Amino acid sequence: MNKLALWHNAKSEYSYAYDSKTLHIMLRTAKNDVDKVHIIYGDPFSWESNQSGKTVWKHEKIQMNKRYQTDDFDYYFIEIKPPYLRTKYAFLLENKKQFLFGSKRVKDIESKDDLYDLFDLSEYYNFPYLNHEDLHNTPDWVKDTVWYQIFPDRFYSHRKHSQLKWGKLPVNNHEFYGGDLLGVIDKLDYLKDLGITGIYFTPIFKAPSAHKYDTENYFEIDPQFGTNEDFGLLVKQAHNRNIKVMLDGVFNHSGYYHPFFQDVVKKGEASEYKDCFFIDKHPVVNFPLDHDGKPINYYGIDLNLKTFAFTPHMPKWNTSNPIVEKHLLDCIKFWIEKYDIDGWRLDVSNEISHDFLRQIKKVSRMVKKDTFILGENWDSSIPWLHGDQLDSVMNYDLSYPIWKYLEHKIDLKTFKNMVTMYLAQTPKNVMENMFNLVGSHDTIRIKKRLKDDVRRVKLSYLLMFLSAGAPNIYYGDEIGMTGEHDPDNRRCMLWDAKDQDHDFYAFSKRLIELRQKHPSFTDYDYHFIDLDILAFTKTSKNDEILVFINNGKQMSVELPKQLMGTYKDLISNEKIELHDKITLEAYQYLLLEKGSI
Amino acid sequence: MNKLALWHNAKSEYSYAYDSKTLHIMLRTAKNDVDKVHIIYGDPFSWESNQSGKTVWKHEKIQMNKRYQTDDFDYYFIEIKPPYLRTKYAFLLENKKQFLFGSKRVKDIESKDDLYDLFDLSEYYNFPYLNHEDLHNTPDWVKDTVWYQIFPDRFYSHRKHSQLKWGKLPVNNHEFYGGDLLGVIDKLDYLKDLGITGIYFTPIFKAPSAHKYDTENYFEIDPQFGTNEDFGLLVKQAHNRNIKVMLDGVFNHSGYYHPFFQDVVKKGEASEYKDCFFIDKHPVVNFPLDHDGKPINYYGIDLNLKTFAFTPHMPKWNTSNPIVEKHLLDCIKFWIEKYDIDGWRLDVSNEISHDFLRQIKKVSRMVKKDTFILGENWDSSIPWLHGDQLDSVMNYDLSYPIWKYLEHKIDLKTFKNMVTMYLAQTPKNVMENMFNLVGSHDTIRIKKRLKDDVRRVKLSYLLMFLSAGAPNIYYGDEIGMTGEHDPDNRRCMLWDAKDQDHDFYAFSKRLIELRQKHPSFTDYDYHFIDLDILAFTKTSKNDEILVFINNGKQMSVELPKQLMGTYKDLISNEKIELHDKITLEAYQYLLLEKGSI
Repeated sequence: MNKLALWHNAKSEYSYAYDSKTLHIMLRTAKNDVDKVHIIYGDPFSWESNQSGKTVWKHEKIQMNKRYQTDDFDYYFIEIKPPYLRTKYAFLLENKKQFLFGSKRVKDIESKDDLYDLFDLSEYYNFPYLNHEDLHNTPDWVKDTVWYQIFPDRFYSHRKHSQLKWGKLPVNNHEFYGGDLLGVIDKLDYLKDLGITGIYFTPIFKAPSAHKYDTENYFEIDPQFGTNEDFGLLVKQAHNRNIKVMLDGVFNHSGYYHPFFQDVVKKGEASEYKDCFFIDKHPVVNFPLDHDGKPINYYGIDLNLKTFAFTPHMPKWNTSNPIVEKHLLDCIKFWIEKYDIDGWRLDVSNEISHDFLRQIKKVSRMVKKDTFILGENWDSSIPWLHGDQLDSVMNYDLSYPIWKYLEHKIDLKTFKNMVTMYLAQTPKNVMENMFNLVGSHDTIRIKKRLKDDVRRVKLSYLLMFLSAGAPNIYYGDEIGMTGEHDPDNRRCMLWDAKDQDHDFYAFSKRLIELRQKHPSFTDYDYHFIDLDILAFTKTSKNDEILVFINNGKQMSVELPKQLMGTYKDLISNEKIELHDKITLEAYQYLLLEKGSI
Repeated sequence: MNKLALWHNAKSEYSYAYDSKTLHIMLRTAKNDVDKVHIIYGDPFSWESNQSGKTVWKHEKIQMNKRYQTDDFDYYFIEIKPPYLRTKYAFLLENKKQFLFGSKRVKDIESKDDLYDLFDLSEYYNFPYLNHEDLHNTPDWVKDTVWYQIFPDRFYSHRKHSQLKWGKLPVNNHEFYGGDLLGVIDKLDYLKDLGITGIYFTPIFKAPSAHKYDTENYFEIDPQFGTNEDFGLLVKQAHNRNIKVMLDGVFNHSGYYHPFFQDVVKKGEASEYKDCFFIDKHPVVNFPLDHDGKPINYYGIDLNLKTFAFTPHMPKWNTSNPIVEKHLLDCIKFWIEKYDIDGWRLDVSNEISHDFLRQIKKVSRMVKKDTFILGENWDSSIPWLHGDQLDSVMNYDLSYPIWKYLEHKIDLKTFKNMVTMYLAQTPKNVMENMFNLVGSHDTIRIKKRLKDDVRRVKLSYLLMFLSAGAPNIYYGDEIGMTGEHDPDNRRCMLWDAKDQDHDFYAFSKRLIELRQKHPSFTDYDYHFIDLDILAFTKTSKNDEILVFINNGKQMSVELPKQLMGTYKDLISNEKIELHDKITLEAYQYLLLEKGSI
């Protein structure tokens, strides 16, 4: 046995409270290295006399299920419900011999009676108590949401107040096309008809840029987008259509023009706001300003303050300063309390202190119990996902393998490994609430990424919709918009029917409908089938789906016996018969329901 | 290379903020499997043009130091100071080939130029920001403390108000010997003279038992121990002698006689306190009571409420209930604010919600910046030690290997493995503040554990004092007290000189003095020497200590050349010359300072 490959950690992604009664336990071993794994668990305070009068620990022994496999590892899983909410546990591994794997070492054992001589409970893993206060308690509505991300200046203009021609190219981050909140209201029925149940707005508070990640006033809708009243109306109108509204909270940094920062610019060390930021040296402005007082040509200058990246447009907040704490938490409360928003997407959440993230969650949930807290973490984010901070994150962990595979940067094997690692190492109660995406205002458009080949874009949407978690449509993707990296990914929405890809729209809409009807779409797992093309099933109590994705030129594959039979093509609704061989056109997919015809 | 043995995780015990500027990074590999490890790291937003005009990531490449080794693994360590507090990083491993180990996979690389083609930063580990709010900020005084644990009923009686004869055996948990707080004041000079700088009191609030873990009133000193005023005087007198005072806070559960619980007993579902506890069913009392209304014969009855272990004497608090929250946090504030205590030891801290532990830390530090928060976690406790909850724990993680080795339950090799795993997997800023112990009111006395053989007890004290962290003397250990498990480990202190072990007292006092004088005593690491007996060095900038511990019968070992030379015996102050061979009597030790004579 490769003992060195064994991994487990108590109170981690390998051992977590799924709900108030249930623990999920995962064990990693080397691939195909172990025949069988049992978990031995019990309450640390439960002891009894055995037949020979010896006091022994009361415990259960249950076989674990080999749930995931990568090229390197097997992952064994079990769900347990400790009656008194306390759990000591260890793993009994068998190949030719038996081993007990506990918190401190791996020991060979000769017989079951050895367990207690070899392993006192001090060498067992411990999940001391399943406390309800530490649970995620993510609102129920999140997992069923279909998100739509709107970059407000470019979605729809009701007031037509911009001089710029709608759709003018190239776009940039300092010109305004006049998209506004009343415009979004105008298009709510469009979204409703598509099947959208949640809107994620990139920032809408007063800020000089087009992207508005440089907040000037946390309590005011940017006048370009409308008024606070417009926003109130928008939320009501959205809620009337059962559409949730999530705002983008930029709490890692302020904008250069925020009055607190401007006070520091003007008064320096005398400013009462100087500790609201991280000023290493005064004067804080050691870069050129243009005639409007705007920072320019700062690239390469060692700034006198801490900022987001290296831009003085975005001074980092000191969120442990009481003035900042109050200001930002007041903002968080304000928009929930007064305008009834349903969620906050936290910009650059991974650079905000864990402490402040905890306060954000507490305050948000206190004001409205079912507020969703979503983080913008690009990397694996378990330390933020223990239940105390974020409900979930923008799921780049899943986007990357999808992107890289469809871009032919990784092969099928690597794709499956990466996805399986994500599955094995993400708590299920996080995974089901993930914000899944194949593109955003921060990335190249999925269509451009895939060489404007709609066949390939469909594959990306298929994979997104067939994952546990809530899918997100970046505005315009659904009608075939394309665009390079920022700022070109922020073009004006194409509203003219002749510019729109109606086929892709119908495809997107169909996926939304199917996802609602088919619980198997949100099966946590992809049950990969070992073929030369990507093939997997998704299952639920009520249905089973079979998916083929050909990520390349036309090819034929032989099918294993168990796949043969009658299916329904879920896109065409036609009956399809699978025999011993299947041929797929270049970038063709098949989305089939088993035995429903 | 055994790729499957590689382990790293960002933001864990393998990657943590040591202080406001410093990250500690550890990588695990299979033992002797890799020739060299470099870390490649940089700021995610720092890019520059290289000679060929290509935009490349600015980064550092530094060799890591093989710091720890067990039978299975090597642990490579590096300390880095990211100038902008953001860090993306990966590991470059070399044996015959080169591998880059990142967050998503291990990849072979052919040349350095491949790094950026093979590994975009999405496959690098991320420590997004070193936020000062998330640091431990454990008070400076903790690491230099020598603790003394007092079980108040059994330490010294000033008022001599008990009918019981001091020292009567056997002891139990419902008889009272009259030890009191004025008695502790009487003995402060004794403690001062021994070298004690901190007292840890087991609970002293009003409670029916002798151990007082069943709190009846969180705001009142138990009358058997004295008055609140006595306690105020005690803290002042202790502080006058530079002795800190830490109280035992029992916040996981109340006592049966706590008025909130008694209200539930009386009024059932009508009680305003019913949600202060976890009552599964009313009436809450489904067990017999004696004529005083005290629970009896409840063993084996399935209780209608959640408790500590299975005892109705200790109903578990629902710390998310606002009444409970306020009550307990008020208590925490009260004793700091009004009586100036220096720390809380949190009973059963591992069963308290993380959320409430965070509140305890926040409130305590708010009232008094340098309050110490110590947890009673018996198992590896990293999830409690990220800086937001506990400063450190009662260090059973270190006690177990010491106990088991000295009891001959594990061999020298296993001892070294277990200790090295503890060293490798404990953040240094936690380790240096650990509460090290070889016995407590919860364990058999160290002397009894080691068959009342003082030679062996000395070895345990040596190991405790030679570890990073603060040592704790369980009252009476220093004068040779013995005792079986609870309650026999809680005997009355022996104050009669003829009952005391003066040699062990002198030894304890000497260790305290030496620990103050020799910074090497608190070296994080034991530099084990590969001999048939336990031998290691401890080093600092200013001194180097060599330790031999013979945990068995007389034996001789050959010494490697580098150990030969002149030393000072730190106990006898005599010069000692080490040649090529050394003979140690049964259970003999040598504590030597290098080259100081």
